[in-house]
Amino acid sequence: MKKIITSLICCTLQIGVAQQVSSPSKNITLDFSVNQQGQPIYQVFYKGKTIIKPSKMGISFKEKTGLTANFSVAKTEQHTVDETWNPILGEEATIRNHYNQATFHLTQKETNQQLIIVFKVFDEGIAFRYEFPFQERVNYFIISDENTEFNLTGNHKTFWIPGDYDSQEYVYNETKLSEIDNSKLDLDNGIALQTILSPHRVQSPLMMVSDEGLYINIFEAAVVNYPIMHLDVDIKTNALKANLTPNAIGDKAYLRTPSVTPWRTIMVSDDARDIVGSKMILNLNEPNKLEDTSWIKPMKYVGIWWEMQIGMSTWDYTGSQSAQNAGDTLLASGKHGATTEKTKHYIDFAAKHGFDGVLVEGWNVGWEDWFGNWKEDVFDFLTPYPDFDMEEISNYAQSKGVKMIMRHETSSSVGNYERHLDRAMDLMKKYGYPAVKSGYVGRIIPRGEYHDGQAMVNHFNFVAQRMADNKLMVNSHESSRPTGYHRTYPNYIAAEAARGNEFNAWSNGNPPAHETILPFTRLLGGPMDYTPGIFEMKMSVYDPNKMEQVQTTLVKQLALYVTMYSPLQMAADLPENYEKHLDAFQFIKDVPLDWQTSKYLEAEPGDYLTVARKDKNSESWFLGSITDENPRKTEIKLDFLSPNKKYKATIYKDGKDAHWKDNPTSYEITTETVTNTSKLKLALASSGGVAISMVPIN
Amino acid sequence: MKKIITSLICCTLQIGVAQQVSSPSKNITLDFSVNQQGQPIYQVFYKGKTIIKPSKMGISFKEKTGLTANFSVAKTEQHTVDETWNPILGEEATIRNHYNQATFHLTQKETNQQLIIVFKVFDEGIAFRYEFPFQERVNYFIISDENTEFNLTGNHKTFWIPGDYDSQEYVYNETKLSEIDNSKLDLDNGIALQTILSPHRVQSPLMMVSDEGLYINIFEAAVVNYPIMHLDVDIKTNALKANLTPNAIGDKAYLRTPSVTPWRTIMVSDDARDIVGSKMILNLNEPNKLEDTSWIKPMKYVGIWWEMQIGMSTWDYTGSQSAQNAGDTLLASGKHGATTEKTKHYIDFAAKHGFDGVLVEGWNVGWEDWFGNWKEDVFDFLTPYPDFDMEEISNYAQSKGVKMIMRHETSSSVGNYERHLDRAMDLMKKYGYPAVKSGYVGRIIPRGEYHDGQAMVNHFNFVAQRMADNKLMVNSHESSRPTGYHRTYPNYIAAEAARGNEFNAWSNGNPPAHETILPFTRLLGGPMDYTPGIFEMKMSVYDPNKMEQVQTTLVKQLALYVTMYSPLQMAADLPENYEKHLDAFQFIKDVPLDWQTSKYLEAEPGDYLTVARKDKNSESWFLGSITDENPRKTEIKLDFLSPNKKYKATIYKDGKDAHWKDNPTSYEITTETVTNTSKLKLALASSGGVAISMVPIN
Repeated sequence: MKKIITSLICCTLQIGVAQQVSSPSKNITLDFSVNQQGQPIYQVFYKGKTIIKPSKMGISFKEKTGLTANFSVAKTEQHTVDETWNPILGEEATIRNHYNQATFHLTQKETNQQLIIVFKVFDEGIAFRYEFPFQERVNYFIISDENTEFNLTGNHKTFWIPGDYDSQEYVYNETKLSEIDNSKLDLDNGIALQTILSPHRVQSPLMMVSDEGLYINIFEAAVVNYPIMHLDVDIKTNALKANLTPNAIGDKAYLRTPSVTPWRTIMVSDDARDIVGSKMILNLNEPNKLEDTSWIKPMKYVGIWWEMQIGMSTWDYTGSQSAQNAGDTLLASGKHGATTEKTKHYIDFAAKHGFDGVLVEGWNVGWEDWFGNWKEDVFDFLTPYPDFDMEEISNYAQSKGVKMIMRHETSSSVGNYERHLDRAMDLMKKYGYPAVKSGYVGRIIPRGEYHDGQAMVNHFNFVAQRMADNKLMVNSHESSRPTGYHRTYPNYIAAEAARGNEFNAWSNGNPPAHETILPFTRLLGGPMDYTPGIFEMKMSVYDPNKMEQVQTTLVKQLALYVTMYSPLQMAADLPENYEKHLDAFQFIKDVPLDWQTSKYLEAEPGDYLTVARKDKNSESWFLGSITDENPRKTEIKLDFLSPNKKYKATIYKDGKDAHWKDNPTSYEITTETVTNTSKLKLALASSGGVAISMVPIN
Repeated sequence: MKKIITSLICCTLQIGVAQQVSSPSKNITLDFSVNQQGQPIYQVFYKGKTIIKPSKMGISFKEKTGLTANFSVAKTEQHTVDETWNPILGEEATIRNHYNQATFHLTQKETNQQLIIVFKVFDEGIAFRYEFPFQERVNYFIISDENTEFNLTGNHKTFWIPGDYDSQEYVYNETKLSEIDNSKLDLDNGIALQTILSPHRVQSPLMMVSDEGLYINIFEAAVVNYPIMHLDVDIKTNALKANLTPNAIGDKAYLRTPSVTPWRTIMVSDDARDIVGSKMILNLNEPNKLEDTSWIKPMKYVGIWWEMQIGMSTWDYTGSQSAQNAGDTLLASGKHGATTEKTKHYIDFAAKHGFDGVLVEGWNVGWEDWFGNWKEDVFDFLTPYPDFDMEEISNYAQSKGVKMIMRHETSSSVGNYERHLDRAMDLMKKYGYPAVKSGYVGRIIPRGEYHDGQAMVNHFNFVAQRMADNKLMVNSHESSRPTGYHRTYPNYIAAEAARGNEFNAWSNGNPPAHETILPFTRLLGGPMDYTPGIFEMKMSVYDPNKMEQVQTTLVKQLALYVTMYSPLQMAADLPENYEKHLDAFQFIKDVPLDWQTSKYLEAEPGDYLTVARKDKNSESWFLGSITDENPRKTEIKLDFLSPNKKYKATIYKDGKDAHWKDNPTSYEITTETVTNTSKLKLALASSGGVAISMVPIN
């Protein structure tokens, strides 16, 4: 790791006079000043154009004078950082962290309260946060509001989902900023719990495109001991304002000095690939805190899961999904998915095809009555159903070289989970489960809390830490969306926290553009357990007269293993469906989950994405390309390949007559020899894709 | 155990016609009827006099039609129970449970919702509860109000404390019902957290005396998965109404059918001894749930505790009691109480004088910053201060035959405690601590919850259950006040949950009447860890110019070991203070903590109490008598002693010139031989007492 730091301590900043900080490339410039009222103000420019107009900053307190005005700048510091670091798992083996930093020490008149505002200006965007140094007058404090503004310069095209405190599992809306209106959404969308308290509130990451073709993204990094930030939109003025998720009694955050807020990030570029490929969010998180990381490994897995999604079997033993207090009198329905026998079948399949793990959902008592009733004592995370023999299964898995993946659905009864967590982890260790998929469906207990509040952020981070203490990996579902904490706790290997593939089974589904937007939004915060790999696109789930359909071609499902980075990837479909298409299945078997480097070749949010990645442990390359509902032709230069090497390219492409709706499973597989001077012509069907493996020949 | 049950299923009750149920003795009669609006109504009579005028009953729901009106009685059942049972520890080795029960099955018109109201009529009072049978329409439900009324017949003299959702650590007020007014109280009373939201709200147990000399007590039993009930007083009409403690968002209770509420109890007698000696609350709780109880044992203990109360040493290592985040840089102040050396001194003292245990407070990291800041991660319950060597101490204690008592102060950061509980119990087991004193000072986290809410009731009960799973005993401080759950989980051996002796060290103290009221109020719910035994009555604590004083004589402190029943009793003073009065200390050494039987000989709330108890494991008797600020002379017949036996009575009495304020440590010890025909003349000083041991002579 190299680290170049140059420091400069500047004189006192005068009122009304802006201090400027530019990115290393000079493309981005940040202006900071304190106005006549002593309010901190910032602006952002990109290649001379205003991106953020003068915007206020500040923090309001519940019980005393807040940190919003009457400031003067006591001291300014600037320095440059240019360093590299190596993530445990990732899209890149080495990540460069290069920025110019300015630190403004503010003192409040009369109260003498201190506030520090730190800016980091990267080539692809700026970040800033508030820091609260230890001081007599500000010791313990309650934040009632964060007043950060993001005053945009135009009515940008925006990819947005509602500012729901409890869910991000929405289809993205693509409208002008001025057209954001949650009250006009169709909320019959398969989301169990929706908490939208304002019509013009949206979530971040908020991806926008200006009329001039600038890509602008507003997000946050390193949300630790702080609530998730949503954004309130003034649809008349294009002004955004931070909205922190409140707790049960309306407070936002409880802090004590010294402490810091998360980073607020504004990315901007005239090339969308700079946004989708940015590592800024990761760079803003604290380095890995774990000494031994040898046990943190990527996992490709199958599991007893999709069959419940499509109604073939049930999570619960009694099959009713609605029986109350069935614990005492469990009567087998015969439809229970998580049986010893079926698990062994999945273990056999995983072993045969080289998968690392098998996930089994519905293994434990409680699913009869697990959801929708704000029930506290749903699961104990310890007691298997009578037809699930943990001892036998774990022995069998071990004999086949396959790892079991634990399932902890909490029903959002969070206190109950925390009460059982140590015992639940002991059980995992006893039976050799290296990872857990946790779940948070439904209303939170402690009652009145939201998924995105400070208490829940702390819970998700606490679970990651406790799992790390026990050398266990965690993949949370229905958690708050990640903001790069997997850099700090790399065992927090993935999360859901967006609309996953499962919605295709039982709701209005994920429209063709969905997977082209996620890399510009949700994925900026960390890997997503999207569960791709569905081969059987049409199914009758709950209503025999109605067919549900995954809104992609089969090949696009393959390409997602490359376009949706995650070190934890499921092959979500049933073994029997893979056995019908073993040639296509080969790509899922071959694709790595950990990378030496990644090249974003083509990117347009809502339209298409093409990325090539080099395996971390070999010289092979893999390419994935996807499109929205529009068929697409493109030509890709393979100049990223090593010179003087030949590769056998196996190309999985949509059939000529393929179409996500009418003919999704039409595909072709061809092979050819390629080099770094090759160009490949790709033709993607409507909501189609291309997946390519390129393996060196000798 | 004998059990006599006679059953009677009655016909449908007609509207407006009351059904009567009498106690076995016929002294108490309960009238139940449904009025023209279909509202359930009850009345209570004692020896023909009305005690409770017609009072409504019912439960309101948050989200659907509540169970308050439009009822008809579909079925009535009556039966009699007469049985005995044996508590694991207690005031009696055998307890009789004798009552007549009536069960009213109500059906609500239009909704067809079902509600059951069960009455049990004992000789010393009535109890009733609501039962919610499983039914389609009432499955999961949220209680927004309990409408139970207790319409009293007069402006009784009342012993009350404010209806504070977070504390019961108040001095009792003795006024007419009509004079109840929290707004007129002096709240500078040493209580850290006060949440009094209504001027006319009081706590139960509410002890009253009518002008006719009837003793009336309103309380509740078996509060499980339900909030604590307070009482709203209409000071003009003498009407009381249940007030359930809300949660953070104003809801009262979350239940699902089948379920039950706690019992609401109304005790009445013309003899105060029937109230103070009643086992009705215990009888209304579920039987012991633990199979093996061999590890549940009484404990008499000393500890490193009073010296912190009186300012001699500190809980925290750095001695500041206010340092922030001192965890990283602990600098010894030299005033830390919980050192290895001092603990060994206490162990030596305990071993020498035959005590079972030693409590050490302030042993663990976190006390620098533990209180008053609503801080979440105060303690980890695992990490000792550097000067407290757990290994060495536990080995030393074991070599001396003494048990260590663990201390878990939670600062009311309850989620944090639950997260650590399993590991904390593992530590207790590793080092052989059989019991824990838990503490809940300060505002609850999850924020917005109250000590008396359903969530906290569940927490206290959960801790008792988990401790039982690990064969550990628990003594909670600042918990919600108990309602007999120690019958069900007898390892929940004691609680504080009232104003304990410690308030004498650093507040306006506990006035002389205090200990004569507690047995009629707080102690009805279960044993209290009052921490008696202070011998050095005057001390300068925080202000060198101000002397604090315990408001009793020394002998009254001895008598409290008999009058305040608990199987866990501390000798709270410093070893050096006991060594100055080893003759008086002998009573504390001799007094048992578990009893064959108890005889309440004299009782008047707020004035005096005399009780004699027979040791469970010998033929010895012990007598304690206390008085309020008024000196008292009385004569006690010893006719409870076994006939034809002689006893050596050792009588610890106030000196002739003793007075709690002017001369508290004046005492005399005399011995004489007594039999069951003896009478003893007792003379108690102002806030004085008498303590007597009576040991058979061969």
